[in-house]
Amino acid sequence: MTPAQPPFGDMPPDDFRRYAHTLVEWAADYFEQIETHAVLSQVLPGDVRKALPDHAPEQPEPFEQVIADLDRIILPAATHWNHPGFFAYFAITGSAPGVLMDLVSSALNQQAMLWRTSPAATELEEVTLRWLARLMHLPDQMEGVIYDTASISTLHALAAAREVAVPDVRTKGLAGRSLPRMRVYASEHAHSSVDKAVIALGLGHDSLRRISADSAFSMRIDALEAAIAEDRAAGITPMAIVATIGTTSSTSVDDVPAAAAIARREGAWLHVDAAYAGVMAMVPEFAWMRAGLDQADSIVVNPHKWLFTPFDLSVLFTPRMDVIRQAFSLTPEYLKTPEAGAVKNLMDTGIQLGRRFRALKLWAILRYFGAEGVRARLREHCRLAQVFAAWVDAHPDFERVAPVPFSVVCFRSAPHAYAGNLDVLNHALIERVNKSGDVFLSHTSLNGQIVIRLAVGNLRTEERHLRRAWDLLHEALDAFR
Amino acid sequence: MTPAQPPFGDMPPDDFRRYAHTLVEWAADYFEQIETHAVLSQVLPGDVRKALPDHAPEQPEPFEQVIADLDRIILPAATHWNHPGFFAYFAITGSAPGVLMDLVSSALNQQAMLWRTSPAATELEEVTLRWLARLMHLPDQMEGVIYDTASISTLHALAAAREVAVPDVRTKGLAGRSLPRMRVYASEHAHSSVDKAVIALGLGHDSLRRISADSAFSMRIDALEAAIAEDRAAGITPMAIVATIGTTSSTSVDDVPAAAAIARREGAWLHVDAAYAGVMAMVPEFAWMRAGLDQADSIVVNPHKWLFTPFDLSVLFTPRMDVIRQAFSLTPEYLKTPEAGAVKNLMDTGIQLGRRFRALKLWAILRYFGAEGVRARLREHCRLAQVFAAWVDAHPDFERVAPVPFSVVCFRSAPHAYAGNLDVLNHALIERVNKSGDVFLSHTSLNGQIVIRLAVGNLRTEERHLRRAWDLLHEALDAFR
Repeated sequence: MTPAQPPFGDMPPDDFRRYAHTLVEWAADYFEQIETHAVLSQVLPGDVRKALPDHAPEQPEPFEQVIADLDRIILPAATHWNHPGFFAYFAITGSAPGVLMDLVSSALNQQAMLWRTSPAATELEEVTLRWLARLMHLPDQMEGVIYDTASISTLHALAAAREVAVPDVRTKGLAGRSLPRMRVYASEHAHSSVDKAVIALGLGHDSLRRISADSAFSMRIDALEAAIAEDRAAGITPMAIVATIGTTSSTSVDDVPAAAAIARREGAWLHVDAAYAGVMAMVPEFAWMRAGLDQADSIVVNPHKWLFTPFDLSVLFTPRMDVIRQAFSLTPEYLKTPEAGAVKNLMDTGIQLGRRFRALKLWAILRYFGAEGVRARLREHCRLAQVFAAWVDAHPDFERVAPVPFSVVCFRSAPHAYAGNLDVLNHALIERVNKSGDVFLSHTSLNGQIVIRLAVGNLRTEERHLRRAWDLLHEALDAFR
Repeated sequence: MTPAQPPFGDMPPDDFRRYAHTLVEWAADYFEQIETHAVLSQVLPGDVRKALPDHAPEQPEPFEQVIADLDRIILPAATHWNHPGFFAYFAITGSAPGVLMDLVSSALNQQAMLWRTSPAATELEEVTLRWLARLMHLPDQMEGVIYDTASISTLHALAAAREVAVPDVRTKGLAGRSLPRMRVYASEHAHSSVDKAVIALGLGHDSLRRISADSAFSMRIDALEAAIAEDRAAGITPMAIVATIGTTSSTSVDDVPAAAAIARREGAWLHVDAAYAGVMAMVPEFAWMRAGLDQADSIVVNPHKWLFTPFDLSVLFTPRMDVIRQAFSLTPEYLKTPEAGAVKNLMDTGIQLGRRFRALKLWAILRYFGAEGVRARLREHCRLAQVFAAWVDAHPDFERVAPVPFSVVCFRSAPHAYAGNLDVLNHALIERVNKSGDVFLSHTSLNGQIVIRLAVGNLRTEERHLRRAWDLLHEALDAFR
């Protein structure tokens, strides 16, 4: 063993202090120099694996070696989500106040299954989500809970829908009994987490009926009505409707008030997937987004997407948390506490027993930026997207493929009299641009065509980064012409 | 706005640097002074809520105020899982190397859904889990995946079991069709995550058949055989058997080889819940634990429990990861990548699309302590538990209630000729001891009796902390006599 390491116990406190200060400098330098890294990692499959031994070391290694490997192995193999040229998928930010409080969260190592195992995490979650709900103008009866991901939030939302549709499902399950077929409706553009949720819940992928979208990629309400009528006629029960505000492909917006009216009429659960765009309900110019949210049975919004929160932190709001508790609360003897009736135990609101202290980072972010600062940054991202959209609209070799309600632009190159396949061309453009290391774009498919997505969402992104993406696209196009 | 904060962008780099160094000092002081805090928080329900405003601030707040609130509000309301007197539930450690690398993880903000969105997180997870599997002497065909919690690991294990039992369950689900009733078998002492998993998966709580335990709190294999035979006779299909190594109440050990033989014979999935004790398979004196693990279809082990890893990090090992992929992999157009066939995309191995870079902290822990250092610490925890057990055994006013295979002692006070109710007495002892602030004990029920649990698992725990717990128990007992 290295002489510095005692046989038992944790790392000596002075060593922790020294390495922690070293890593703070490392992280601060990383943030300052982030544009020196290729945003999309340029390593090849297997490079990381091959750089490391097959077995854990028998003897302790000096921690300096671990730190050295961050630069040697980890950084080149990271795709830099905090890079201002990250425009793929949904661009996110692990903001400084969030990172700082995540350090505190790691040191405190709270496990908030019961109120008593972390009154701080339990009540700060309640307070912070109340703040967030009010900023979003959600009705006061909306109770929030923090999960890790939107996948898990939506899983719980649809588990609640199942609980309502089949009141004894908790006990008796779905198999081997006489139950009507049940259906979940969602736009053809709804997120794959809806698919995974119906699969996990034992409803089966066939229980998800995808509804076609209109020319703006919003779920067609007439098609939803027709699908439900057809299903009703076939004896199929509408269990839930998923409406999306900000779909993943094009950030299109479903008509939530109309979906809400149908859900209410049909006795179906209305889940609103606002994982990406929900935060925009904070901004007065986007007040239209709030319509119908008071009718939702559940709403998912992800602060780790567009509220500058280091991954992971997803929020489910619902006025019917009692249904989730009814579905999942279960207290073995060893988790019984005298205060159980007087407090909220977070383990009752879901599948996961253990919960990290996630509220801390969101709380710090809301305080550090302030509501006005958050709104200003969200507006700026939307403004940047409009700037880019205007460039696309003004150029004859490119065309915009979808409206830009938020901060994502969907477009493609379609040069006049281009003889080749446009899908192949656009894929090639993306690949070439991404190889630059300066920006990272991703694609989707809209109307059966390959489309380039440029998503703004990182706090470091400025107009010059958009300009760089635009220039790179032109350079790439010139190379293929 | 405060003058220091720009209208857009993240916190200025120099401010991040300054606050981060401040928080490093704060965290280092916290670790050094942890014994000055009451291990079980002494705040009252509502204290945190009442200390904070109802609304997020409109204007930015100086970050110093957020930091000040850590001492003012958060610390008194934290239950200190890193305190050496934390003996409740399963004692854990957010060790320094883990905390340090969690800081790096937060700063990098990797979202490892696809290989390309983080080659580093994807391949380091593979490498680190290979290290862990080899340390535990698991067969090479065991592939690992990191989830957040054992609840989610076990959910995936039983989802895989369901996939095998009902091959088209992904598409058709469980409802409205002719399926045999299915059963999951687990000891009466199995963890509540098994209950939550069968509920979530739509199998229903009734599908879980609890098997009675023997005098050592191990699942009775004869009772398991009888239950399966009875179910078979009633046309019920055995879907899965859950065997536990280290149950939550008493850390009892089920007979894994026997359960494996039955599972194989019956065509049922064998899931081994080794969330707490699995790490002991690293230690040669515990080689007996490895028997039957090569027959397991899945094994859950939680580095955040007894491998010094800050919450959260749970591992599922399985030689049948293809079944989990078959159950859940699903790639929408916008997540398709040219390298898909050549790499592992972590989103394919589960419900959650997004994944934090969790492997980093476990990798650093294995390197910093080294395999020998890890084993030495695990052994020391077991030794400490034996020391405490010996005190209990030697004292006429206390009795041990279960064997101590690992690091948890189950005991109760049963003074000679005590006229009162022993359950009431033992609950009262725990409450009084916990009020001291020096130690935190929890309880369970064994053989219908309330039992005190003392769980060793924190790296700071020394014999003097056990002595303090023992003295406090005696002081409390004197007060009640």
